Amino acid sequence: MATRTDTGRGHGRRNLLAGAAATMTAGAAASASGATTATPPRATGRPMPDMERPFALPEARRVGYAVVGLGKLTLDELLGAFAASRRSRIAALVSGDRAKAERVADRIGLDHRHLYDYAGFDRIGDDPTVDAVFVVLPNGLHAEYTVRAFRAGKHVLCEKPMANTPEECEAMIRAGRDAGRRLMIAYRQRFEPHGLAARGLIEAGRLGRVRLVTSDHHRHLDPRDPSDQWRTDRMLAGGGSLVDIGLYSLQAARMMTGEEPVGVSAAISSDRDDPRFRAVEDMVQFSLRFPSGALAHLSSSYTGSRLKRIEVLGTEATATLDPGTEYRGNRLRLRREQEVTELPASGQEQFSAEIDHMSECILGDRAPRTPGEEGLRDVRLMRAIYAAAEAGRWLTLRPDGSHEG
Amino acid sequence: MATRTDTGRGHGRRNLLAGAAATMTAGAAASASGATTATPPRATGRPMPDMERPFALPEARRVGYAVVGLGKLTLDELLGAFAASRRSRIAALVSGDRAKAERVADRIGLDHRHLYDYAGFDRIGDDPTVDAVFVVLPNGLHAEYTVRAFRAGKHVLCEKPMANTPEECEAMIRAGRDAGRRLMIAYRQRFEPHGLAARGLIEAGRLGRVRLVTSDHHRHLDPRDPSDQWRTDRMLAGGGSLVDIGLYSLQAARMMTGEEPVGVSAAISSDRDDPRFRAVEDMVQFSLRFPSGALAHLSSSYTGSRLKRIEVLGTEATATLDPGTEYRGNRLRLRREQEVTELPASGQEQFSAEIDHMSECILGDRAPRTPGEEGLRDVRLMRAIYAAAEAGRWLTLRPDGSHEG
Amino acid sequence: MATRTDTGRGHGRRNLLAGAAATMTAGAAASASGATTATPPRATGRPMPDMERPFALPEARRVGYAVVGLGKLTLDELLGAFAASRRSRIAALVSGDRAKAERVADRIGLDHRHLYDYAGFDRIGDDPTVDAVFVVLPNGLHAEYTVRAFRAGKHVLCEKPMANTPEECEAMIRAGRDAGRRLMIAYRQRFEPHGLAARGLIEAGRLGRVRLVTSDHHRHLDPRDPSDQWRTDRMLAGGGSLVDIGLYSLQAARMMTGEEPVGVSAAISSDRDDPRFRAVEDMVQFSLRFPSGALAHLSSSYTGSRLKRIEVLGTEATATLDPGTEYRGNRLRLRREQEVTELPASGQEQFSAEIDHMSECILGDRAPRTPGEEGLRDVRLMRAIYAAAEAGRWLTLRPDGSHEG
Amino acid sequence: MATRTDTGRGHGRRNLLAGAAATMTAGAAASASGATTATPPRATGRPMPDMERPFALPEARRVGYAVVGLGKLTLDELLGAFAASRRSRIAALVSGDRAKAERVADRIGLDHRHLYDYAGFDRIGDDPTVDAVFVVLPNGLHAEYTVRAFRAGKHVLCEKPMANTPEECEAMIRAGRDAGRRLMIAYRQRFEPHGLAARGLIEAGRLGRVRLVTSDHHRHLDPRDPSDQWRTDRMLAGGGSLVDIGLYSLQAARMMTGEEPVGVSAAISSDRDDPRFRAVEDMVQFSLRFPSGALAHLSSSYTGSRLKRIEVLGTEATATLDPGTEYRGNRLRLRREQEVTELPASGQEQFSAEIDHMSECILGDRAPRTPGEEGLRDVRLMRAIYAAAEAGRWLTLRPDGSHEG
Repeated sequence: MATRTDTGRGHGRRNLLAGAAATMTAGAAASASGATTATPPRATGRPMPDMERPFALPEARRVGYAVVGLGKLTLDELLGAFAASRRSRIAALVSGDRAKAERVADRIGLDHRHLYDYAGFDRIGDDPTVDAVFVVLPNGLHAEYTVRAFRAGKHVLCEKPMANTPEECEAMIRAGRDAGRRLMIAYRQRFEPHGLAARGLIEAGRLGRVRLVTSDHHRHLDPRDPSDQWRTDRMLAGGGSLVDIGLYSLQAARMMTGEEPVGVSAAISSDRDDPRFRAVEDMVQFSLRFPSGALAHLSSSYTGSRLKRIEVLGTEATATLDPGTEYRGNRLRLRREQEVTELPASGQEQFSAEIDHMSECILGDRAPRTPGEEGLRDVRLMRAIYAAAEAGRWLTLRPDGSHEG
Repeated sequence: MATRTDTGRGHGRRNLLAGAAATMTAGAAASASGATTATPPRATGRPMPDMERPFALPEARRVGYAVVGLGKLTLDELLGAFAASRRSRIAALVSGDRAKAERVADRIGLDHRHLYDYAGFDRIGDDPTVDAVFVVLPNGLHAEYTVRAFRAGKHVLCEKPMANTPEECEAMIRAGRDAGRRLMIAYRQRFEPHGLAARGLIEAGRLGRVRLVTSDHHRHLDPRDPSDQWRTDRMLAGGGSLVDIGLYSLQAARMMTGEEPVGVSAAISSDRDDPRFRAVEDMVQFSLRFPSGALAHLSSSYTGSRLKRIEVLGTEATATLDPGTEYRGNRLRLRREQEVTELPASGQEQFSAEIDHMSECILGDRAPRTPGEEGLRDVRLMRAIYAAAEAGRWLTLRPDGSHEG
Repeated sequence: MATRTDTGRGHGRRNLLAGAAATMTAGAAASASGATTATPPRATGRPMPDMERPFALPEARRVGYAVVGLGKLTLDELLGAFAASRRSRIAALVSGDRAKAERVADRIGLDHRHLYDYAGFDRIGDDPTVDAVFVVLPNGLHAEYTVRAFRAGKHVLCEKPMANTPEECEAMIRAGRDAGRRLMIAYRQRFEPHGLAARGLIEAGRLGRVRLVTSDHHRHLDPRDPSDQWRTDRMLAGGGSLVDIGLYSLQAARMMTGEEPVGVSAAISSDRDDPRFRAVEDMVQFSLRFPSGALAHLSSSYTGSRLKRIEVLGTEATATLDPGTEYRGNRLRLRREQEVTELPASGQEQFSAEIDHMSECILGDRAPRTPGEEGLRDVRLMRAIYAAAEAGRWLTLRPDGSHEG
Repeated sequence: MATRTDTGRGHGRRNLLAGAAATMTAGAAASASGATTATPPRATGRPMPDMERPFALPEARRVGYAVVGLGKLTLDELLGAFAASRRSRIAALVSGDRAKAERVADRIGLDHRHLYDYAGFDRIGDDPTVDAVFVVLPNGLHAEYTVRAFRAGKHVLCEKPMANTPEECEAMIRAGRDAGRRLMIAYRQRFEPHGLAARGLIEAGRLGRVRLVTSDHHRHLDPRDPSDQWRTDRMLAGGGSLVDIGLYSLQAARMMTGEEPVGVSAAISSDRDDPRFRAVEDMVQFSLRFPSGALAHLSSSYTGSRLKRIEVLGTEATATLDPGTEYRGNRLRLRREQEVTELPASGQEQFSAEIDHMSECILGDRAPRTPGEEGLRDVRLMRAIYAAAEAGRWLTLRPDGSHEG
């Protein structure tokens, strides 16, 4: 993809390591092709398991990303996800903290020429090793950096929620269209193996008809944790627990029913004496109606103890993901009457699967599973949830996720 | 460690990526140092969590390994483990299949100059990027390649079981001593977070006095799986299920009691009409006595359905690892009377922790946790187990793991 | 088998057996009083564990019940519950099926003189062995038989829901007051050991502040099951899944928060083409607001697969009852962060505990834990739930459970 | 409460209550016969579920038992079990503590004429209401009271272990044969629903071939608990943890394999400084070989924390009963590869099922599932276990459970 200019120094393939390894461990179920295994005397010939499918690309052919924002998510999860990816690599870092950026660059073997600060961000347009920009900034900055990235001619993978308002989302989509570049919203949940396995059970009819989805996402917001401080700033966060983690509950309901909601009711409960909740809400509870008659009741808060649970009640069986959206350690159980089966789920780790999906879409010129329109729909739905709580009644939802009245 | 001569080509730091990522995700509990976080206008300053401790080394300072054997374990697990390591890198590959070696090398960005076949293996002595050799060959070849590696002046990390006989083990230890190089046996189990957590509970007195350890390791040996075919060849395998997976049960008993056994009884059950069990045994059951009065009953087979279970019964509580020695997905439960608590365990992934431990020992000139003497002891104990089964009686064990009579 | 010769004497105490046994097994935790245990030569003297507290009454002093309705609940659960009770006995049976009544009477050793049909029900006023009436009829008949029982001078234990309308409930309460007799609504859930244990955890502060209660009760209504057929008859049932099993969700929310709701929103989803749901609803989803800021989202249906789940989210921990309201086999788990502990709960079986509670109130002249006022409040709340679903908006609830507007 | 006026008549049927109730709740799976359900106007006609099969006998036709020994097991479990039985009733009590016996008799409505002390025990031969004797005494008294009971012309249900020596067992069997009466050993484990369900899975081939059974039974022996004090007296107990709870492990191995062992090895570990273990052993570990090649490793102790676990490893799947032999709260899980299913098990409660089985055998003149020969075999096997520990080698077992050499 990238028209490299630095391939002459012979290390283009260097950091393929992680990707290759990931490939092999990920799909290590079937394997054992009839590969030629000319074995040395006395040594055993073992086949090459799964190395080809889905194969990891050599570095020179991987999609290069400029990661914007070196916060906790980037440092704790995304660097590792790139290391374990098959089609993706970090081509540049964007941070306001030069020293930190240099340290990270040294760690991942990135030349300092590929470090940018926010002011100089637009210069990435001149960096041919960068194919796409991964926006990992506070929500309120998503629109600005996405638009600037498109203007620089890059594709964009943007963290969820897409932006603070539908208008921002629309501007982002428009900018991508104008630039002829892909836009994907980073819903890792759509790539989590247990959730995908649950969705697979539903599609296979193992649950019967879906009647109800419940999902609760709660965690403590610690005002002393620097990585959480921006979340109580309305300009940066755009909302409280709903936009941060309630969005997982919302996605779960849409993903598991496979439908778009037609009605919404909600309630908000925040202690206004708590300094955390002066600008953004604490607990949100919302209910959705779907065309099939399925319902969902969903919630999030910043004061409840850690809970990341999804349950799908069908006419024949119930699937429970508890936890369902942790970074790791998720579990899937299927219940039929009083028989409960724990089902293992395997597959590529969710963050690297998400990034690789974007890369595959760029390489194959295809629309991503979660394009800007998906992010926009959720932003509209969250706006409708707030409106329903404000109105104190059920609101009718339009096909595009916006509400009537 | 390695006195590099190839640093001039400027890619020494290239594949640091994976290691850096692993560092950050691994210990992501505490964090939030008072690091300067000069943040750009409007962007948030998030601290650099855990990047320093335990920090990942830049590639040039990492320990370089020649991985000998490109079988399933190497391809499915070890390549990924190196990618996620902090102090280790792959510096060379040794394989009898040149084409396969080249494909793997391309994947991990390794120059083909660092590929060796078995005949030319001894030339690694001239490769300054190689600090240590990781022997991942059938058991019967461990001694030969370990000794050759020491003669080439390299340290050795050798897969378990250490070798087929105590005599081979002694030769390996002697060769290392003569060469002034470190020898470690690759017991990943000693680095598995849930097992370590269980051991931590025991040391903290949470179980009271340990009275009994039970551990059962069983799996199907599929004669059609090329990666398992050598396991029925006595010369290559040295034994059946005991040396392959029963060794986990044996290690569990020693690790959890913290004692060395003084008595052993055993029984073997193999269907000699089954072509798999003409040369090696199927099921082994063995019991151990420890000085404190603790007992262990342990087993392994190649015909039982998949089971990898360890249970430690104390006077106050019981710790159950079920599964306990899977590559991933292990679980730890603590039972006191009828109250059962599932305990999360976190920490560096077992394979990369194992490899990094060897690297730390090399870098710090320290003895590894599982030196050759540990491997030798287990080989002696396994010999005693076979002897006890043959004798049909309890045998007395000497402090070095060998048996009397 | 036994050829009795001793039938002529006063065996008023005959069927004390069950009660005594239940007493002893139920609270078998503490025990070992300093009871004199003069043991025979060579035999061991074991103390008398727990036989005294809470002791079982001899039959003549137990409260005698006329059980009205010999349906599935009576036959499958209540007869056994009386057998295991400590203060209660069956003194009469009321049924429209004489042959069935006689068979049951023979089984439990009840003289046929204590059998009544519905027409002759009022004659129980003349039966001095009957202290109380247990109304186990379809909901629509609760009011009539309760009022008739009070007029006959008996106390009343009435199955939930109390009645179809608040007006009926009020008439029942009035009749009891006029008669000077006790009225209790049979909420077995309030006597279920795991639920009580969860409530105990909350009261002990183990969960922190309660923020959210979720509870889902679902089951298949099988139109071929005679014991369920009346449930689709609006006159007899008074409603659909809400009044039948959604009431458990409602009770859970009130019981676990320890508060009365101040707002309600709801939605109903029924397939009107399904003959089961022409007169009564299938799925109901409802949300409650509590004065403390706690919320609840709750549901029930007749089409979802079997689910009887209660979860209480606090600021410090989460208690999960799953299942929570089965007749047996309920389980309680406490989660703090990612540590999940299964807690055993013991105590008197819920049905017999419920019946004995009524007996204790009668014997001690005390108000029951779930008097008519409790049943009335729930009936009002359920009316409010239907009204909220109809109105499509949040309704304000008055302290007595009725809704404004 | 009730001022009875009806005490003068034939209440032979009085305490049928418990049995009837138990019948109904126990098998409440299928049901719904075509029973006539003539329903009254407005009331619903519900069928009579499961009342007939297996029906509870009226009291006069039940088997009457003299319960010998009013210790903890009798008081906490057996009285309740009789109350919940369908074919059994308590006809007499035998105790050295007259006051205690009278209190229990009053509780269960038993005339004091049916109370016996140990000296007068033989007079039960003149009590026509007593059909059988249930011996619930310390192990060392089993033989004496069983023989005396047979001489009195009664059938005998005797607690496990059958006796302290094979010779005593043989005398018991002979006495029964001479008297023409039935002898059953009270192995409740053979009636426990989860264990039976596991055995059913095995017989249905769900586990493949059984390769290994492991079972561990451990508990604290508290010397301050009067009900446990006799267990450290060798004359009364006959052995330590093996005969008390290790017997469950032994039974599990025989029950789950469906085979008789042909070889045994064992080890004993007791702290002789602990006053509890001067006369009887603490921990026993024993291993068995079966003709099919299956093995078992089994254990028991009086110092390990509470554990009552059985695991059956087959070639296709593993069944885990954990706990497996608690009085209540047992659980069954089936594992295939990494998929674990919890299976509910239902059926008559184990103690009452055990007693009713004896009654059915008496009523139908059939041999019980666990006759004296079964108890004798276990006593021989336990003797062989002690002998194997003593000998320090594998001993060969004869078909009758005794050992060679």
